[in-house]
Amino acid sequence: MKIGFVGLGQMGSGIAANLLKAGHELSVYNRSAGKAEALVAQGATLAKTPAAAAQGDVVFTMLADDSAVETTIFGENGILGALKPSAIHVSCTTISVKLSEKLTEAHAKAGQRYVAAPVFGRPDAAAAAKLFVAAAGEAQALKDIAPLFDVIGQRTYVISDKPSAANLVKLSGNFLLASVIESLGEAMALVSKGGIDRHVYLDLLTSSLFSAPVYKTYGALIADQKFSPAGFAAPLGQKDIRLALSAAEALSVPMPLASLLRDRFLTLMANGGDKLDWSAIAGLAAKDSGQ
Amino acid sequence: MKIGFVGLGQMGSGIAANLLKAGHELSVYNRSAGKAEALVAQGATLAKTPAAAAQGDVVFTMLADDSAVETTIFGENGILGALKPSAIHVSCTTISVKLSEKLTEAHAKAGQRYVAAPVFGRPDAAAAAKLFVAAAGEAQALKDIAPLFDVIGQRTYVISDKPSAANLVKLSGNFLLASVIESLGEAMALVSKGGIDRHVYLDLLTSSLFSAPVYKTYGALIADQKFSPAGFAAPLGQKDIRLALSAAEALSVPMPLASLLRDRFLTLMANGGDKLDWSAIAGLAAKDSGQ
Amino acid sequence: MKIGFVGLGQMGSGIAANLLKAGHELSVYNRSAGKAEALVAQGATLAKTPAAAAQGDVVFTMLADDSAVETTIFGENGILGALKPSAIHVSCTTISVKLSEKLTEAHAKAGQRYVAAPVFGRPDAAAAAKLFVAAAGEAQALKDIAPLFDVIGQRTYVISDKPSAANLVKLSGNFLLASVIESLGEAMALVSKGGIDRHVYLDLLTSSLFSAPVYKTYGALIADQKFSPAGFAAPLGQKDIRLALSAAEALSVPMPLASLLRDRFLTLMANGGDKLDWSAIAGLAAKDSGQ
Amino acid sequence: MKIGFVGLGQMGSGIAANLLKAGHELSVYNRSAGKAEALVAQGATLAKTPAAAAQGDVVFTMLADDSAVETTIFGENGILGALKPSAIHVSCTTISVKLSEKLTEAHAKAGQRYVAAPVFGRPDAAAAAKLFVAAAGEAQALKDIAPLFDVIGQRTYVISDKPSAANLVKLSGNFLLASVIESLGEAMALVSKGGIDRHVYLDLLTSSLFSAPVYKTYGALIADQKFSPAGFAAPLGQKDIRLALSAAEALSVPMPLASLLRDRFLTLMANGGDKLDWSAIAGLAAKDSGQ
Repeated sequence: MKIGFVGLGQMGSGIAANLLKAGHELSVYNRSAGKAEALVAQGATLAKTPAAAAQGDVVFTMLADDSAVETTIFGENGILGALKPSAIHVSCTTISVKLSEKLTEAHAKAGQRYVAAPVFGRPDAAAAAKLFVAAAGEAQALKDIAPLFDVIGQRTYVISDKPSAANLVKLSGNFLLASVIESLGEAMALVSKGGIDRHVYLDLLTSSLFSAPVYKTYGALIADQKFSPAGFAAPLGQKDIRLALSAAEALSVPMPLASLLRDRFLTLMANGGDKLDWSAIAGLAAKDSGQ
Repeated sequence: MKIGFVGLGQMGSGIAANLLKAGHELSVYNRSAGKAEALVAQGATLAKTPAAAAQGDVVFTMLADDSAVETTIFGENGILGALKPSAIHVSCTTISVKLSEKLTEAHAKAGQRYVAAPVFGRPDAAAAAKLFVAAAGEAQALKDIAPLFDVIGQRTYVISDKPSAANLVKLSGNFLLASVIESLGEAMALVSKGGIDRHVYLDLLTSSLFSAPVYKTYGALIADQKFSPAGFAAPLGQKDIRLALSAAEALSVPMPLASLLRDRFLTLMANGGDKLDWSAIAGLAAKDSGQ
Repeated sequence: MKIGFVGLGQMGSGIAANLLKAGHELSVYNRSAGKAEALVAQGATLAKTPAAAAQGDVVFTMLADDSAVETTIFGENGILGALKPSAIHVSCTTISVKLSEKLTEAHAKAGQRYVAAPVFGRPDAAAAAKLFVAAAGEAQALKDIAPLFDVIGQRTYVISDKPSAANLVKLSGNFLLASVIESLGEAMALVSKGGIDRHVYLDLLTSSLFSAPVYKTYGALIADQKFSPAGFAAPLGQKDIRLALSAAEALSVPMPLASLLRDRFLTLMANGGDKLDWSAIAGLAAKDSGQ
Repeated sequence: MKIGFVGLGQMGSGIAANLLKAGHELSVYNRSAGKAEALVAQGATLAKTPAAAAQGDVVFTMLADDSAVETTIFGENGILGALKPSAIHVSCTTISVKLSEKLTEAHAKAGQRYVAAPVFGRPDAAAAAKLFVAAAGEAQALKDIAPLFDVIGQRTYVISDKPSAANLVKLSGNFLLASVIESLGEAMALVSKGGIDRHVYLDLLTSSLFSAPVYKTYGALIADQKFSPAGFAAPLGQKDIRLALSAAEALSVPMPLASLLRDRFLTLMANGGDKLDWSAIAGLAAKDSGQ
């Protein structure tokens, strides 16, 4: 297929490389063109604008946030004005439910198709084609691009025919991750102040009931109190909790644990945590306990 | 070894059976003697009092709560007055840090030895000798009974030479479990009100980042909103959060997520939930959201 | 002075009437013109658009929310395009800090002056000229309109030369009011379930340490569990807590009590409370406790 | 009347002095006898034990906490063994609902009468006979000692014929006070970070809707961030919130705001706040916001 790819950060470049490897014709765009070099060396074409990247059958976007997506789609030389009728925009960014609804409407009005496909997994999973894809949109559109998802991830979950549902799933997933971080932060503050070695404790947890990767990954960071460098920066985590709470507000769903997480991120930001990994909110329980 | 076993509920009878199978001489006691029958049929001796069960080298207790342990140890015909010098009391009950400290002192004064060994795992794991044992106490005592732990569990973690540390670990573990339940409750209330199928959502979670057994077990109960019959009754969960908060208070460790859990259990109790599984607190987020 | 007044709800009509009584020439506008009739009968001129009302030296706006203010100022036939250089826009609506900042900039660019003057007090206080005015803006502008504030309120507080500071004060004041409601709701749920008469309890509180009007007013509503008709509707209270939290987020100030209030309002909305008085959030503590 | 008075701290000595001034025959006891000197100089008799002070018609106790009351009543040379049949124990201490129930039972069994009469007001109010008395107990007993309450306070509120109800009222009152402190702490953190002068803000609040003494008293401490010396020490505030939560737990009443206060006090204690006034919890919102 003739595919465009917009947004070549750590996640995007890994995904794009896998599409290229699978034999697709790829046109790539990134705001700072330097990031496109490696892909161009592997055979991709460099596009000078998002519009230029959106001349094919499908265009992926994998950007930082709502604002970047708005500019890329609705701005000058944006995708909306360039994408052919029936061509598909696959949006992988973690964006708000509201913006996803706006995209649904705008693409429909333009006779284009729109699929929301946020992914679970970190940069190494993107590079290894081991992502989990949460996809939502019209059945036919999902069918048409299913082979592309197979190329970039280890499994695709079809969530709904309403694209924004996939964004809601992604936001709720990040809420669950942050909840794990908070709970580990409190538990470790407790046992540590009680004189127990944090690493012994973590070993017990992760080799018994809490064997999921997320407990291992974040548990190690918290046991070490090592929140830098940031794998996923705190401001991004804060943004995702904000978007989850915003979606919950629109649906009138109170989420007290999400409110607690919101306050944790604010405390972190107010105390110089903006360069840290989002798991640094786990350090606040220890700090509050005088450790 | 000559071993006593006091407390033959679902957990205790499974553990006792494994000790028996391993060839130990077992004297068993339960308040309602009926529960001892199966073990007696397999070769155990029926003891008429806790004291009678505590004539050997080691006595295990696996009871309901602090109050039951106090009666069994300090009460009439209790273990404290019967246990030989240097014999070991292995306490498996999930009790308060405070009571564990009291037991430490009382047994030391009596020239006896005391090991706290709460376990992680449900009745089926107890029966299958697949428990995880969190053990704490003097090194020599732990060494002396290590073979017994090997017979009842799949792995033993030595937490500390201070017995109460194992109880703290157990309480913090139950706090982590309840945190998983709360976070799943909120996340499912959100996606479900957003029109997403809870089972599709759960499948995505548990086959990707949240692959730990605890997410599968509780996620299924929550997706089905099936909180009865109780695998672990809500009042027991409430008790454990209370004990965790109480230990945290003694150490001056604020745990806002544990406070939230406390309030959830109170709401559940005030609204007829005392017969339900403790995962029923996950239904409150859905209820608050009008579902 | 030649004054315009836009927004003739319960609050606005009381304020406008007092300006008229003081001898000012008043041009009034309301979206549904019927509400202007009484004022016109008293000598006010009916304006057909916000722009038409903004021909004088000063124009007041007292509207429902951010959206109404945006339309009235920036929309077609809006105030921004009509107000003379150096004329003053006095904004009394409870709006967001962000919109107030936007108004500051827009009026400055247009050579106009802008004062934020949200008020404390309910409709009866507005009618009786007993409002408390929280005013912020340039010193000269505040001086120029001080006589008008004297006519509508019992006291004016000059908060800052930055208009949005007055809006922040107003939002924080509504947060304090909602906090009183929540605390009374919890306290009454407790004593009431303990068998104590709520009215005896309230009498004790309000005749001793809690003698402020706010405890009397809301205490009575809560003791009676009488949340209808709405003096201040729950969705407006929800909006103000949202705006307070939003301002707090912009400043990185965690406010856990405000987060709790947010969740209370969501629960109320999700369970049919949108027509009730905002004090109905106090009923949720009672409900959670099974009363 | 022949009256005993046990506990001559700041509160107790003021109350006792007023009973003495009214012409009653007073026998006084304090653990450290020095505190009794002033009263003895005014005509009181020094008792060497609580029992010795309890020989008359009525004995008041005004002590630090549950533990002090337990010792004084049930301990060696305690009141329970000394008080005559039908004589009345008036307990003014802020104690737990549970202990008050235990006292009710013990005094009844001994043929004695028991009235719970916690008071609202600080030491200066005690000295000036301006306390508010929350009294509960049998109607006849309350009638018999009503003249004594008139001598020590400005008004008596009869809460219930169940003594512990008065204790519940007192605890809930302290919860309301702490809620005011928390809400002011958050509001001031917000406006202060927004560039507003805290004293201007406080003046606005206390001269308008929040005119109750409690807002003035605590507002000033918070605006000044002056939490020392302690008028009411933080550990006592922490104790009262603990007792309120404990009573609420016994009644299955979730109180999320009380839970928040609990966590605030723990944070304060863990960070060196044990010598500060309890209003110091208001400083935590400022600290969390980086101020």
